[in-house]
Amino acid sequence: MMTEEIFMVEGRDLKMLIKQFVANRAKLAKTAAAKLATLSTETKNSALTAMARELENRQAEILAANDEDIKAATEKGIRSSMIDRLRLTPERIAGMAEGLRQTANLPDPIGTEDFHDTRPNGLKIRRIRVPFGLIGIIYESRPNVTVDAAALCLKTGNACILRGGSEAIRTNKKLVEVLTAATTAQGLPEHSIEFIEITDRDAVIALCRLRKSVDLIIPRGGAGLITRVVEHSTVPVIETGTGVCHIYVDKDADLEIALPVALTAKISRPSVCNAMETLLIHKDVAENFLPKITAQMIENGVELRGDEASRKICPEMKEATEEDWETEYNDLILSVKIVNDLDEAIDHINRYNTLHSDSIITRNEDAAKKFQALVDAAAVYVNTSTRFTDGFEFGFGAEIGISTQKLHARGPMGLDALTTTKYLIEGNGQTR
Amino acid sequence: MMTEEIFMVEGRDLKMLIKQFVANRAKLAKTAAAKLATLSTETKNSALTAMARELENRQAEILAANDEDIKAATEKGIRSSMIDRLRLTPERIAGMAEGLRQTANLPDPIGTEDFHDTRPNGLKIRRIRVPFGLIGIIYESRPNVTVDAAALCLKTGNACILRGGSEAIRTNKKLVEVLTAATTAQGLPEHSIEFIEITDRDAVIALCRLRKSVDLIIPRGGAGLITRVVEHSTVPVIETGTGVCHIYVDKDADLEIALPVALTAKISRPSVCNAMETLLIHKDVAENFLPKITAQMIENGVELRGDEASRKICPEMKEATEEDWETEYNDLILSVKIVNDLDEAIDHINRYNTLHSDSIITRNEDAAKKFQALVDAAAVYVNTSTRFTDGFEFGFGAEIGISTQKLHARGPMGLDALTTTKYLIEGNGQTR
Repeated sequence: MMTEEIFMVEGRDLKMLIKQFVANRAKLAKTAAAKLATLSTETKNSALTAMARELENRQAEILAANDEDIKAATEKGIRSSMIDRLRLTPERIAGMAEGLRQTANLPDPIGTEDFHDTRPNGLKIRRIRVPFGLIGIIYESRPNVTVDAAALCLKTGNACILRGGSEAIRTNKKLVEVLTAATTAQGLPEHSIEFIEITDRDAVIALCRLRKSVDLIIPRGGAGLITRVVEHSTVPVIETGTGVCHIYVDKDADLEIALPVALTAKISRPSVCNAMETLLIHKDVAENFLPKITAQMIENGVELRGDEASRKICPEMKEATEEDWETEYNDLILSVKIVNDLDEAIDHINRYNTLHSDSIITRNEDAAKKFQALVDAAAVYVNTSTRFTDGFEFGFGAEIGISTQKLHARGPMGLDALTTTKYLIEGNGQTR
Repeated sequence: MMTEEIFMVEGRDLKMLIKQFVANRAKLAKTAAAKLATLSTETKNSALTAMARELENRQAEILAANDEDIKAATEKGIRSSMIDRLRLTPERIAGMAEGLRQTANLPDPIGTEDFHDTRPNGLKIRRIRVPFGLIGIIYESRPNVTVDAAALCLKTGNACILRGGSEAIRTNKKLVEVLTAATTAQGLPEHSIEFIEITDRDAVIALCRLRKSVDLIIPRGGAGLITRVVEHSTVPVIETGTGVCHIYVDKDADLEIALPVALTAKISRPSVCNAMETLLIHKDVAENFLPKITAQMIENGVELRGDEASRKICPEMKEATEEDWETEYNDLILSVKIVNDLDEAIDHINRYNTLHSDSIITRNEDAAKKFQALVDAAAVYVNTSTRFTDGFEFGFGAEIGISTQKLHARGPMGLDALTTTKYLIEGNGQTR
C-alpha cells in the first residue's frame, strides 16, 4: 500500500510522492487505453454486462464497505443530505447494474466515419471517431459516479482514472475492485479503470497537470471543485454541472403556466444543477404574480431573497445581496428580482448565469425568439422548466455530466462527448 | 494612449494596470459579440468584402507601418527568416484581400440546425450552431494572421481580441485600424476586432485568465507560446500548430515512394508545422535506403542527426540526443532512427509526437492498418507526406490553425471549429 508510505513523510516530499504516485497510475492506465481503443463492440458489451453481474454478486461486500464510509461520515458530523448521497442500498446497487446493462445496449460510436473525400491528387481522406485515450474524472461524494464513469469510458474505448470524494473512499475502492475483477476476467487490460485513493487535494492537482498522459479531465461537482480544476489544469477540461439557472416571467406570460413551472423548478429536486436559483419577473405582472408564487414557495419551505422592488410587494422576503445572484444554492432557497423589461432580464442572466439553462415564460413570439437568441446558455427554454436539461429527458441516455462550457460539448454529454476524431489518409506516393 | 500611461509605473502596479487594460478591452469586445451573433450572412459578407477593399485602398499606409517594423527588427538584429515572415508587400496585401473575399464566399455555419426531436412529453428540442462569443487569438510575427483571424471570427459571428508578436506591432495596429474602418462603415459594432498593443507578456497571461468574458483562446505559434498559454489559461484553449511529425519507412516499403516523399516532407518548406522532423527506418531496409536518402538530404542542405545504428551506416551524421526526438526544428535539420519493427516505430511516435501528423510508407496492408489504428495523431498517413495536413489540401478552405489537441477540433480547423451549439427548447407548460 503506497498510501501508507506516503503519509510517513511531510511537506515537499509528500507533494513529490503524490505527484509520482498519480503519474505512475496514469501511466498504467494509458497503457491500458491503447488496448481498449481497438476492442470490438461485442467485447466491450460483454465486459459491461459482466460488471453488472459482479456488482450484484458482491453486493454484500460493497454494502459493508459503504457502511464503514457512512459510519465515518456520521462520526465526523457530516450533514444528512450529504450522507444520503453517500449511502448505497440493494436498490441503488441494482440501479447501477441496470445502468451498466443500458450502456451495453447503446450504439458504439467508435470507428464510425463522419467524413470522407477523395482529393483531386488522389489522396483518400476519412475522418473516424476514436477514443480520447485516458480520461480523468474528479468528483465528490456520490459513489454511483464511479460506476457510471467507468461504464461510459469503457463503452467508448477509453481508460479512466477516477478520483472520488474522501467520504466515499472505501465504497469507491471496493467498487473499482469489483468492476476490475469483472473486466479482467473478460480479458480486458488490468488498469482500464484506475482509482486514486489519495484523499489529499494535491492528488487532484497532480492529475490535472499530466498533460502528456491524460487526454481529458472532467470535474463533476460544485463550483469550488470546478474552479480548482480549471485553475490548475494543463490538460483540456470539460466544465460540468454548476447551474445558476433562471426563469424569467415576461409581461406577456401565461401565468397559469408560469406558476407550476416556476414552483416545480425550485422544489421538485433543489439539489440538482438544473433547478431554478433565480426568478426574474417583469414589473407589469409582478403585482399579480409575485404574491401567488411566493405564497406557494413559502408553503413548500422555500426561503426567499428579493431585490428592493420585489420586497415592496412581498415584505416577508429577506434582502438579496450581490452574492445571491451568483450563488447556486442547491437548496430550498430562491432569489427574486423584478426587471423593467426583457433586455434587463437578458442582461441579468448573461451576467450571472453559468451557461447552463435559462427559461422565459411568454406568449409573445418575438420576446421568446429574442430571449433564445441572446441568452448565452447550453439550453434556452420557452414556456417550460430548466429541470429538463438532462440526458434522459433529451433522449440521449446516460450522461457523464452537463457541460457548461462551449468547447467540444454543450449541455447533456452522452457517449459522443467522450470521443474525438482522427483523419486517416491514404496515398500512393503523393508529395508536396 | 493608455499604453504610455502604463509604462510610467512599475512592478505590481504595472501588472495590475495591464490586467485592467486587457479586461476593459475584452469587455468592449464582448459587448460587440452579442451584436455580431445576430447579424445576417449578407451583412457579414458585405463587411468582409469592404475589409478587402479597404486593405487595397490603404495599401500605402500599411506598407509604411510595416517598413517601420522591419527597420526596428533589422536594428535589433533579428534573423532574416523572421524578418521575411514580418514583411508585407503589395502581393502579400493582395493575398490578404483575396483571403477575405474567399471567406465571404464560404457557407455560413451560424444558425444551421444539426439535431431536432419532439419528446413524448411534447417538448420540441432543436440544436443550432452559434458563435462562441469572444475569441482570443495569441500569435507571433506574421501579420497575415491578424487579417485571417479577424475574417474567420467575423464570418462566424464572433468578436475577436488579438495579441500579435511585438515585432509586428505597428503593422498589426494599422491593419486593425484599417479593418475596423471598413466594418464600422458597414454598421458593425466598433469593438468587433480588438487588438492588444501591450507587448509585455503579462498581457497574454491577463487575457488567458478572463474566464467569464473570453470564451476561447487559440494560441498560434511555437511550443513555448503554446505551453505558456496552456499553463496560465483558465479560459478553454485549443492548442495548435506544434508539429513533431514522423515518417516511418517500413520493411515492406516501396522505396521508390519513400525517397521522394521523405525528401520533400523535409525540404519543401521546413519552417511549417507539417514538415517531417524525424525519419524512422526499419532495420531490414536501412542498409539499402539510408545511404540514398541521406545523400539527397545532404545535397539539399539538411543537417542530419542519427541514432547509433544509423550512424554505423552513415557516419557523416551527427549524434542525436534525447532532446532531438522531441524537437520541432522548423529548419533544415532531420533526426534519424533505425527501429527493429513496426511496434518500436509506433512506440517512438506515440512517445515523441505532438499529436499532429505521422506517416507510414509500406505495401503491407496489415502494417498500414495497425499504424493508423495505434498512432495517436490528428492525421495518420499511408504512403504519402505529412505535409498534406492543411485546410486547403483537405478541401476545407481557410483555417485558423491545425489543432493538436483532442477536444472540440482535431487537425485543420475551418469555420465550424469557431462555432459551438445551443439547445433551444419549446414547451407549453411542462413541469418536472
